[in-house]
Amino acid sequence: MKQFMDEDFLLRSKTAQRLYHEYAENMPIIDYHCHLLPYEIAENKRFENITQLWLYGDHYKWRAMRSNGVDEKYCSGDADDFEKFMKWAETVPRTIRNPLYHWTHLELKRYFGIDELLNKDTAKNIYERTREQITSNDFSAQSLLRKMNVEIVCTTDDPVDSLENHAKLSQLDQGFRMLPAWRPDKAMNASDTEAFNNYVSHLSEVVGRDIADFQSYLDALKERHDFFGKMGSRLSDHGLENFYAESYTTQEINSIFTKIRSGQKLTEEEVNKFKSGMLYELAVLDNSKNWVQQFHIGAFRNVNSKRFEEDGPDIGYDSIGDFSVAKPMAAFLDRLSKNNALTKTILYNLNPRDNAVFATMLGNFQDGKVPGKIQFGAAWWFLDQRDGITDQLNTLSNLGLLSRFVGMLTDSRSLLSFPRHEYFRRILCDLIGQDVEDGLVPNDMNLLGNMVKDICYYNAKEYFNF
Amino acid sequence: MKQFMDEDFLLRSKTAQRLYHEYAENMPIIDYHCHLLPYEIAENKRFENITQLWLYGDHYKWRAMRSNGVDEKYCSGDADDFEKFMKWAETVPRTIRNPLYHWTHLELKRYFGIDELLNKDTAKNIYERTREQITSNDFSAQSLLRKMNVEIVCTTDDPVDSLENHAKLSQLDQGFRMLPAWRPDKAMNASDTEAFNNYVSHLSEVVGRDIADFQSYLDALKERHDFFGKMGSRLSDHGLENFYAESYTTQEINSIFTKIRSGQKLTEEEVNKFKSGMLYELAVLDNSKNWVQQFHIGAFRNVNSKRFEEDGPDIGYDSIGDFSVAKPMAAFLDRLSKNNALTKTILYNLNPRDNAVFATMLGNFQDGKVPGKIQFGAAWWFLDQRDGITDQLNTLSNLGLLSRFVGMLTDSRSLLSFPRHEYFRRILCDLIGQDVEDGLVPNDMNLLGNMVKDICYYNAKEYFNF
Amino acid sequence: MKQFMDEDFLLRSKTAQRLYHEYAENMPIIDYHCHLLPYEIAENKRFENITQLWLYGDHYKWRAMRSNGVDEKYCSGDADDFEKFMKWAETVPRTIRNPLYHWTHLELKRYFGIDELLNKDTAKNIYERTREQITSNDFSAQSLLRKMNVEIVCTTDDPVDSLENHAKLSQLDQGFRMLPAWRPDKAMNASDTEAFNNYVSHLSEVVGRDIADFQSYLDALKERHDFFGKMGSRLSDHGLENFYAESYTTQEINSIFTKIRSGQKLTEEEVNKFKSGMLYELAVLDNSKNWVQQFHIGAFRNVNSKRFEEDGPDIGYDSIGDFSVAKPMAAFLDRLSKNNALTKTILYNLNPRDNAVFATMLGNFQDGKVPGKIQFGAAWWFLDQRDGITDQLNTLSNLGLLSRFVGMLTDSRSLLSFPRHEYFRRILCDLIGQDVEDGLVPNDMNLLGNMVKDICYYNAKEYFNF
Repeated sequence: MKQFMDEDFLLRSKTAQRLYHEYAENMPIIDYHCHLLPYEIAENKRFENITQLWLYGDHYKWRAMRSNGVDEKYCSGDADDFEKFMKWAETVPRTIRNPLYHWTHLELKRYFGIDELLNKDTAKNIYERTREQITSNDFSAQSLLRKMNVEIVCTTDDPVDSLENHAKLSQLDQGFRMLPAWRPDKAMNASDTEAFNNYVSHLSEVVGRDIADFQSYLDALKERHDFFGKMGSRLSDHGLENFYAESYTTQEINSIFTKIRSGQKLTEEEVNKFKSGMLYELAVLDNSKNWVQQFHIGAFRNVNSKRFEEDGPDIGYDSIGDFSVAKPMAAFLDRLSKNNALTKTILYNLNPRDNAVFATMLGNFQDGKVPGKIQFGAAWWFLDQRDGITDQLNTLSNLGLLSRFVGMLTDSRSLLSFPRHEYFRRILCDLIGQDVEDGLVPNDMNLLGNMVKDICYYNAKEYFNF
Repeated sequence: MKQFMDEDFLLRSKTAQRLYHEYAENMPIIDYHCHLLPYEIAENKRFENITQLWLYGDHYKWRAMRSNGVDEKYCSGDADDFEKFMKWAETVPRTIRNPLYHWTHLELKRYFGIDELLNKDTAKNIYERTREQITSNDFSAQSLLRKMNVEIVCTTDDPVDSLENHAKLSQLDQGFRMLPAWRPDKAMNASDTEAFNNYVSHLSEVVGRDIADFQSYLDALKERHDFFGKMGSRLSDHGLENFYAESYTTQEINSIFTKIRSGQKLTEEEVNKFKSGMLYELAVLDNSKNWVQQFHIGAFRNVNSKRFEEDGPDIGYDSIGDFSVAKPMAAFLDRLSKNNALTKTILYNLNPRDNAVFATMLGNFQDGKVPGKIQFGAAWWFLDQRDGITDQLNTLSNLGLLSRFVGMLTDSRSLLSFPRHEYFRRILCDLIGQDVEDGLVPNDMNLLGNMVKDICYYNAKEYFNF
Repeated sequence: MKQFMDEDFLLRSKTAQRLYHEYAENMPIIDYHCHLLPYEIAENKRFENITQLWLYGDHYKWRAMRSNGVDEKYCSGDADDFEKFMKWAETVPRTIRNPLYHWTHLELKRYFGIDELLNKDTAKNIYERTREQITSNDFSAQSLLRKMNVEIVCTTDDPVDSLENHAKLSQLDQGFRMLPAWRPDKAMNASDTEAFNNYVSHLSEVVGRDIADFQSYLDALKERHDFFGKMGSRLSDHGLENFYAESYTTQEINSIFTKIRSGQKLTEEEVNKFKSGMLYELAVLDNSKNWVQQFHIGAFRNVNSKRFEEDGPDIGYDSIGDFSVAKPMAAFLDRLSKNNALTKTILYNLNPRDNAVFATMLGNFQDGKVPGKIQFGAAWWFLDQRDGITDQLNTLSNLGLLSRFVGMLTDSRSLLSFPRHEYFRRILCDLIGQDVEDGLVPNDMNLLGNMVKDICYYNAKEYFNF
């Protein structure tokens, strides 16, 4: 029997253990997509206790607590920090077999050196021990990143963002780099007339001139895109229910833009055409700079309308959608390919039933110019657990080239999430190691070890051109 | 090599074996949803032979026999009981790796103490031995339930049902309780004008007054719902292709009701609006009594129209549908949630590709008031086998809280199906035990044993408020 | 640790090893569906080097090479044979965990006796050694088939095909039989007016008379179908995105036929009606001769329009679609069943998310006349790898009768693909063997060995009535 979460956690065979400890473990981390707050990192934020670091804003934990019958007061509500921690501690043993159980104890171990299991009996002691550590200097935002051997972290930034925090941090040598990434979701969200017009106004202010028509809108976005590039951005990200690839003419898009700017609500068809046009133009921009574009597809967000109206997005009321994705994804990528405007692309799905569709879509647009040019993105959000990661790795292996995979990212809002890279690496090594033990893969540690190192670090480094 | 179906059947590790034998095995059974016939239990029906108990009405076995080239005469037809048994016995070795192979031998073992494998050579002897046992007193309907340590069994009853059998049985102390459950499928089936009007007439007779309009229809249903409550019902069940959550006004529903009552066929849109309105009102009723509502979603029924026209439903011509479910399910639940009318709910899917959609939908409506308020239902019908059960448990574990799961139900029409609880419990213990062996879960038998007992018994007991 | 690809490759248990070596290994091969070129076999084609045998036309390898950043010149382009081989050899180590890695080394081993791993260092030597062997007599097309113990191979032929190669070969005793199979995809492709009319003209020439209306079109096709039957065909095959089962009248189909023959473009609705009518009529033809009809459903083809326009189909730009399939499949099969015109049928899906839908559809139309009359087809194309084969076998086992399965086919364009039967057989034996070890299946080698032999050979032999 293996000990719970010992040094060979998740590594069931000797070969897996060798692959992890000799090849994967010490690779630096390139976290090419996350939702950390740039100002927290630039200002090197300090925290008062583990609740602030761990429970503020963590909708994964809130969902588990609600499922466990914990009142909202202790989740997103106004209970005090210690009470919130106690409620979480009581919930933890109830999360057995959920990734939260592993994440929780891996984070306690890696950041705080705590091996004890968290539950209501151990909670008070753990709260105190972590508070002592957190209030020391070693737990500032930047220290937390350095502790995990992070080399590069890419944030998620709106085109109108000033990137002042990135600028500030880039002046200093902190042992890692924080780069911006371009997330223009709001720039194409024409289903909400008021929000869209506010956005255009904001953009207009930022670029310091009027935005009179669609072309000047695109010009303003391009100016910001150029600026992001100067600030070190090498990639974009889009969070979409599905791809938008309707037929449209430039003239139609112009008219739609004029209509929404006059304050009118668009029809559903107009919204789809506009989004299709914008998504295309944004992809053309990314291609012009040889960036990587990322598409996170298939989330079904803000499902609980009462909670959304009261408290807004990103508080744990999202789920997995079941949209038909093959045809719109193909149409979008094909239009770009036909116009020689398809840049390096990462496709992430949220519904695991679509793994095979995504993984086979890649092959249709690999052009033989860049190894692994079109990527099947790492298991994400709800899928970021052992089964989800395993399925993504196996599907990619069966239908594409695992060896060319750019690997893991946290996609997290928490400074304590970086052990997820370790989690991923252990699962990767376990799968390959098991294949060796089973005689499915040759026992060539040089070959396999380098493949592991590539997936953990070198592939991303080369692909993103940091 | 493990012996076939020995005492550690399905339990691959020592920890799994301990979890099962020390914690799960002796828990009573709460079978909160099945299709047993109340009068057979109330009248304590006796049978003449195993064919009557086992093959009459068992469409699982009929499907296997047809697939094996056995004529319909020996399935739902008029061959004699011994001939039918012989055809089934010949088919059994052909079902290897199908759950029928396990169910068959588990039922022979648990009810009859027969360890021999059933095939054409052993059939005659087994037929005789079981006949001797069946014709003794120990094989009456009630004895069969007691033999399996059943504490509560919930049947599936139409609102117009008199529940006289439940009343009769409740007078006696039989060592178990049989409770009714509310299944109003016919009350909303407005796609068949004649059947619907017959149903309304029937309901009118039962409540003893005219049903003049939609409101009086709802009133009549409410009266029956109250009656079911008095008779011990604590839950409802709906068998639906998909959720119905169209927009509608009360006025529209009134008009639609008037139209169908005048004998006219409804348009598809009207049917959908009516079903949406009815499903909402029925959910409001359940919420008013704090009942549990169950939704069995995704069956694609009566696919073979010739056989349906000749022989009706439930004879083995159904399959798994591939409907889009996320949006209508969300719309239905959200409407209830917004109006504070969402009661405890169990969501069952039939298409395994939808596991992740269902399991993530739960979290959107957990309100922190009741632990595990929204449940991901146990693997059902076609999925009620080792792989299906494993997938459901793993998906629930990864995306929700396994520890709060209310566990297994037979959903069966057969008095001999109760070993499926054993089957489920063994698989559950095997999964958790394996996780312990692999170091994925702490080796804390107290914690895990109690979790197992909760899932097998205590969670359901508390959740349904029996 | 098992040796890579040793004699017990893929066989993890002793029981699996016994099942494979004692029962499966020596069964002859019935390859009832492939895309080999009849003239290459009839003419007993010889090759100059392994590139010609292995890389010409193999879109699996091309996709992997493109994913690895290899220029098109070395895939479908005009680089010389040795250069192409070198690029493939460099790519091979990058395909670890992809089935290509196994297929490559299994084919080198079985046809050439080469145990070395292919990579850039070993490439030159392997190229030379294989060239020596290939240019000897033992590597002619017919020798390659005999070497693999092929008893019957069914090609894929258009109704207008003369079948002269089949005729020629049938005169000789070559140790195996090559039979034609009826693939009338072009005969129903009414979405392309020009191509369809060219097809009708071609058919008209072949039957030697005018095709004036829909009835004479059907008559001409029936004449060819009769001819195929005389030439030994016992099965048809259809490659479709989805089933077509719209409502239509004969009069409508007549009019649509007249319209397209006059050179007009059909509406989408007309195309669907026409395809629905044709598919039905073709199924009636197959039923009239008691043939087996095969449906390969769900490929999403020619996704990269630029490459399609430049280079045509079947060069590696296809992927897996996500069509809704349950309702049209049911409607199509039910219409045939209702008219007593449903012949033996094999249903293949390409999207693994549809496994359960397909596997449960079977049971709706098993009529008890022919064991396994409706079959769930073997894992195909993108799914033809260990995980895909395992999923198909497990789904079939859980939802139908594995014992009645007609087993594997190559579906390949390559003369070197026959070790895929071995691959399949090893996986099959591994699964059953593991079940025995785990006590899930009785340790009865006679029972299980015969089941394995049936699936590998005897079931197909009986089912296809060769």
